Amino acid sequence: MLKVFICGGSGYTGCELLRILSNHPEIIVTGVTSERSAGKSVTDLFPHLHKYSNLQYEPLRAGEILTKADLFFMALPHGESQIAVDFFFKHGKAVIDLSADYRLRDPKVYEKWYKVPHRFQVTLQKAVYGLPEIYRNEIRRAKLIANPGCYPTGAILGLLPAVKNRLINLSSIVIDSKSGATGAGRKADLAVAYCEVNEGFRAYAVGTHRHTPEIEQEVSFLCGKDIIVNFTPHLLPVDRGILTTIYAPIVKKITVNEIVKVYKDAYKKEPFVRLLEYGIYPNIKNVCGTNFCEIGLKLNERTNTLIVITAIDNLVKGASGQAVQDMNIMMSFEEKTALDTIALFP
Amino acid sequence: MLKVFICGGSGYTGCELLRILSNHPEIIVTGVTSERSAGKSVTDLFPHLHKYSNLQYEPLRAGEILTKADLFFMALPHGESQIAVDFFFKHGKAVIDLSADYRLRDPKVYEKWYKVPHRFQVTLQKAVYGLPEIYRNEIRRAKLIANPGCYPTGAILGLLPAVKNRLINLSSIVIDSKSGATGAGRKADLAVAYCEVNEGFRAYAVGTHRHTPEIEQEVSFLCGKDIIVNFTPHLLPVDRGILTTIYAPIVKKITVNEIVKVYKDAYKKEPFVRLLEYGIYPNIKNVCGTNFCEIGLKLNERTNTLIVITAIDNLVKGASGQAVQDMNIMMSFEEKTALDTIALFP
Amino acid sequence: MLKVFICGGSGYTGCELLRILSNHPEIIVTGVTSERSAGKSVTDLFPHLHKYSNLQYEPLRAGEILTKADLFFMALPHGESQIAVDFFFKHGKAVIDLSADYRLRDPKVYEKWYKVPHRFQVTLQKAVYGLPEIYRNEIRRAKLIANPGCYPTGAILGLLPAVKNRLINLSSIVIDSKSGATGAGRKADLAVAYCEVNEGFRAYAVGTHRHTPEIEQEVSFLCGKDIIVNFTPHLLPVDRGILTTIYAPIVKKITVNEIVKVYKDAYKKEPFVRLLEYGIYPNIKNVCGTNFCEIGLKLNERTNTLIVITAIDNLVKGASGQAVQDMNIMMSFEEKTALDTIALFP
Amino acid sequence: MLKVFICGGSGYTGCELLRILSNHPEIIVTGVTSERSAGKSVTDLFPHLHKYSNLQYEPLRAGEILTKADLFFMALPHGESQIAVDFFFKHGKAVIDLSADYRLRDPKVYEKWYKVPHRFQVTLQKAVYGLPEIYRNEIRRAKLIANPGCYPTGAILGLLPAVKNRLINLSSIVIDSKSGATGAGRKADLAVAYCEVNEGFRAYAVGTHRHTPEIEQEVSFLCGKDIIVNFTPHLLPVDRGILTTIYAPIVKKITVNEIVKVYKDAYKKEPFVRLLEYGIYPNIKNVCGTNFCEIGLKLNERTNTLIVITAIDNLVKGASGQAVQDMNIMMSFEEKTALDTIALFP
Repeated sequence: MLKVFICGGSGYTGCELLRILSNHPEIIVTGVTSERSAGKSVTDLFPHLHKYSNLQYEPLRAGEILTKADLFFMALPHGESQIAVDFFFKHGKAVIDLSADYRLRDPKVYEKWYKVPHRFQVTLQKAVYGLPEIYRNEIRRAKLIANPGCYPTGAILGLLPAVKNRLINLSSIVIDSKSGATGAGRKADLAVAYCEVNEGFRAYAVGTHRHTPEIEQEVSFLCGKDIIVNFTPHLLPVDRGILTTIYAPIVKKITVNEIVKVYKDAYKKEPFVRLLEYGIYPNIKNVCGTNFCEIGLKLNERTNTLIVITAIDNLVKGASGQAVQDMNIMMSFEEKTALDTIALFP
Repeated sequence: MLKVFICGGSGYTGCELLRILSNHPEIIVTGVTSERSAGKSVTDLFPHLHKYSNLQYEPLRAGEILTKADLFFMALPHGESQIAVDFFFKHGKAVIDLSADYRLRDPKVYEKWYKVPHRFQVTLQKAVYGLPEIYRNEIRRAKLIANPGCYPTGAILGLLPAVKNRLINLSSIVIDSKSGATGAGRKADLAVAYCEVNEGFRAYAVGTHRHTPEIEQEVSFLCGKDIIVNFTPHLLPVDRGILTTIYAPIVKKITVNEIVKVYKDAYKKEPFVRLLEYGIYPNIKNVCGTNFCEIGLKLNERTNTLIVITAIDNLVKGASGQAVQDMNIMMSFEEKTALDTIALFP
Repeated sequence: MLKVFICGGSGYTGCELLRILSNHPEIIVTGVTSERSAGKSVTDLFPHLHKYSNLQYEPLRAGEILTKADLFFMALPHGESQIAVDFFFKHGKAVIDLSADYRLRDPKVYEKWYKVPHRFQVTLQKAVYGLPEIYRNEIRRAKLIANPGCYPTGAILGLLPAVKNRLINLSSIVIDSKSGATGAGRKADLAVAYCEVNEGFRAYAVGTHRHTPEIEQEVSFLCGKDIIVNFTPHLLPVDRGILTTIYAPIVKKITVNEIVKVYKDAYKKEPFVRLLEYGIYPNIKNVCGTNFCEIGLKLNERTNTLIVITAIDNLVKGASGQAVQDMNIMMSFEEKTALDTIALFP
Repeated sequence: MLKVFICGGSGYTGCELLRILSNHPEIIVTGVTSERSAGKSVTDLFPHLHKYSNLQYEPLRAGEILTKADLFFMALPHGESQIAVDFFFKHGKAVIDLSADYRLRDPKVYEKWYKVPHRFQVTLQKAVYGLPEIYRNEIRRAKLIANPGCYPTGAILGLLPAVKNRLINLSSIVIDSKSGATGAGRKADLAVAYCEVNEGFRAYAVGTHRHTPEIEQEVSFLCGKDIIVNFTPHLLPVDRGILTTIYAPIVKKITVNEIVKVYKDAYKKEPFVRLLEYGIYPNIKNVCGTNFCEIGLKLNERTNTLIVITAIDNLVKGASGQAVQDMNIMMSFEEKTALDTIALFP
């Protein structure tokens, strides 16, 4: 049994990790940290996690917990995560970091968007971006995974086949995303109070969201040149789910069949990407609670625009599920272990 | 007192007309039709409309009701509306048609998108598109108003200043809209059943929605050349509201201040358009129950893209409120009569 | 024009007062206080209140604002309200207190449930409980109104005719209430975060809620003896509305018609109580945004139990609307002024 | 592998059965019927059930499918179910009927509440009411299970220990239940349209709901005398969950500790009943997607009333999950097989 530890387990991401890991036959959760909730049991915060009624939050004392696990899931705030990740990594532990700290390869880009310097650039170079659909082989050999952001997961999976195969004009990509409120985290904040979010809908951080450089880094990697994109996130009055609607002009006459073939080929072996029939569009409700990314395609022949729509559960494929998928790959477990579930519908 | 009649009053649009008109000191509702609910009282269908407890639905017998009113609001299904509108118009009545039947000036375009021929092309030429922000003078003199669609209202108001002032590249406009479920109408339909819509979010009619040619017609009119656009509607799990996020490349270097000035100038006298401070984005919750269109602006200088976000209540500015605004203009009532309300927040 | 001031205007109750008062032709709002938001404009907190864009929050300096208004609406936290109310009242101002501080006539009961002593017992004796359906005449002559709590409004209006007419056994009344989330106030609090409330439903403060003695006081007053009740509040995943389901055994054989007649007679002149047809039950959605209390009745003849169901909008009839109704009565304005609106449905 | 068949698989109950059974290692689903959707695949109706992409709906031809399975889950409308259940039962198949047809032991009571006669009274006498917490031993030996209704499950589990131990006055039990919209089934019906349910809350079938005699039958069984109860269902704007608040006077002075002990003893061995700490109340959100019934207790010492609050997921413990639990018991599988899951929170 692999011993795993969760650093930062009092948010929605941590609680979702615990839910998913409870189904995993090859691991055991040996501890979970929270500074603010230290001393409380997991079920004090999350009564539904009653399988963990004996697990208590403890403060993150890196030196002490080092020996308690083989793999550390890090769900700490960015900036804080840097240090702890570096510590466990240098001590030879497998680390999967759900924060943004090791996602951007260029520390200058990180500093520009996150307003803090990156202090562990050597370790940073060892991190693998944990999107299996691009980096499965690298993940297999990695000791440090930078688990992708929720928005980037939906955006990159929507763009990957089109970008790799140069179907689209890369200079005017529009990515319009809509996320459920769990994306904002678990916190006492008027901006996410029920009556402020319910029956509302709005954009935020237009053109300035920190997931923008992450999307750009991976899209650039896929096509081999520097790409910048328009990315607009919106806040949906639902708990879970991100729907991303992507628009890009096609570069030359191409048929629907050709587009569909490119997407089919790209994802035919992927266990967690489901390409819907052409003209069928995904609904976040159909992936709720699952690690799937569903993709719908439309070629608008009037405007010569390819429209790709993706749906994920931001807490699963957009965070904790993908982290478990990465662990499965790193540890040579069957990739779908603990993730082979059906959406809770309705 | 102006006598008004509502043809097709059993849907959400009709019920919203009755709500708004109940506050109007210069009119009296003399009747309301519904084929299916004929004989029932308005309060049988809508208990909250208890001020209308004496009003009963009657079948639409055009000849009989002709003398009962000076102005007819038509909220019939497209196709059906054509005939009744023509009848009342030819008999000299003022008509405000909330259906799509008289919105598209070119009957071939109408037939292409609505799959029925337009049989009243002479009358069609007399119709004025009832968006006061473009056609206030024409509305003043009109006898037949084609009340704009809900999506087009939000899209056109977002684009108007930029298009008129040639700030943007007109060949690659992306319009990504998200509408509350009242937009689907009041009907027994599994697709809008609570458990199918709640906690869900999805696109539909991607690139094929019937409001597309309506947006294109007006944008083309504003710039004097034929424009086609990318338009994608989505279904939001809320009752009311449309948020529209518009993307268009700017044509030359232009500053934020210049853009803001163009928008300010365009709307400074408009009673129902509110330009938000630059960098503030609208929320459908803030216009709920009102006739306002709120507009937020962002110039993405990394991508040279103008992003315009608009919010309306689809049942008010997107339907019944705009119809009353048009009536006020036609009848020389104060334009804000019955519409000068504050959003119900939260 | 009556000058009115709002002390404590940064919560949902204050914002709703501003919305309702914006429709009132006989008053002018001369100021609004908030300690935390002092210096900000009303529209900084509530963009939808753009009619008040020139109104700024100021700290509550009782001496300074004394001359600025004739009537003070007090929407302060309990405990704090005591002092300010006493001050304005003693200086001859009309005061409508939306807090709980002057609702309970017996200061010992107040101290027991609110855990603070009542320091202004002389003033307390002058307060009139502002439920017009019981105390309209007293309100007319009052200078200090204790505006009823939201739950008590729905519960007392449901019980009033049955209690006054001794239709029910008073010793085993069950009051099961369900409130929208605005009832919890506007605050940064994890317990009312969107993802905690949405898709959830739970009871709280079972048998211990502070509105219990308020309900008991008024029910006891109506029947002339000391009554205690079972009261259970629940949190509904909606913005607005309280539905209260009341159960009480009937004392003797009585027919449906007799019960209906008692309720009809009790409320026939009430402008804001609507008795629904027997067997029709109210929906909070039908009173949303209005000052109405709707009441449905059922005599369960199998169990000899009277079931009364009431619906109000907790922010209107349950708070700010009732406060304006009380003001209208005190000031001899037409009682329905600013309140004669139709629900926003859907 | 046990072969199971689902008769009536196009509703929410059928789709939830398929979801749960997909996790069951000891069974195989050999077919699923639907008259209206015959010929369609399961994924045409429910795209999220992609594991069943090869399974097609077929019409219910009882004779033909008889040999295809060992156990039949029946999720047909009441009245229809009678016949098919009788057929499969008489042919020696194990049958679990999710309809109401075999729940009421007295056919006269059935006819009175369901308005159709019961034509299979001999078979009816063989049916076991499938609430394991009362009838586990009988279920073990049964060939025909009448799966309990959703409301009765929550109500009976809340009452069981108190009734069996005579803690409460049985003549004035009040059961106030609130159910999510999946309880109304999957159908095109205006009453469950999104905009009619969202932001609303109402009671229905007050004192007349068909689950009333089912609750009464089992409560009467538990105490050995004829009990009638007040039962009021309400419609909650959520997908899943029933919260039931039960009120009953205690018969004699009893302490909190004694009550807690009675409940603890009653449920200490139950795998799917979780008694919460005294003073903690359940939330439907914490049981969403699970087979758990959570129970909270309060002794109101002011009114000498016991208040019991239960939460279940109406589609799981209230329907399909309980059906699988019954199957596990009948077939001597581990009782928690396929049901040992954690709630999807948030």
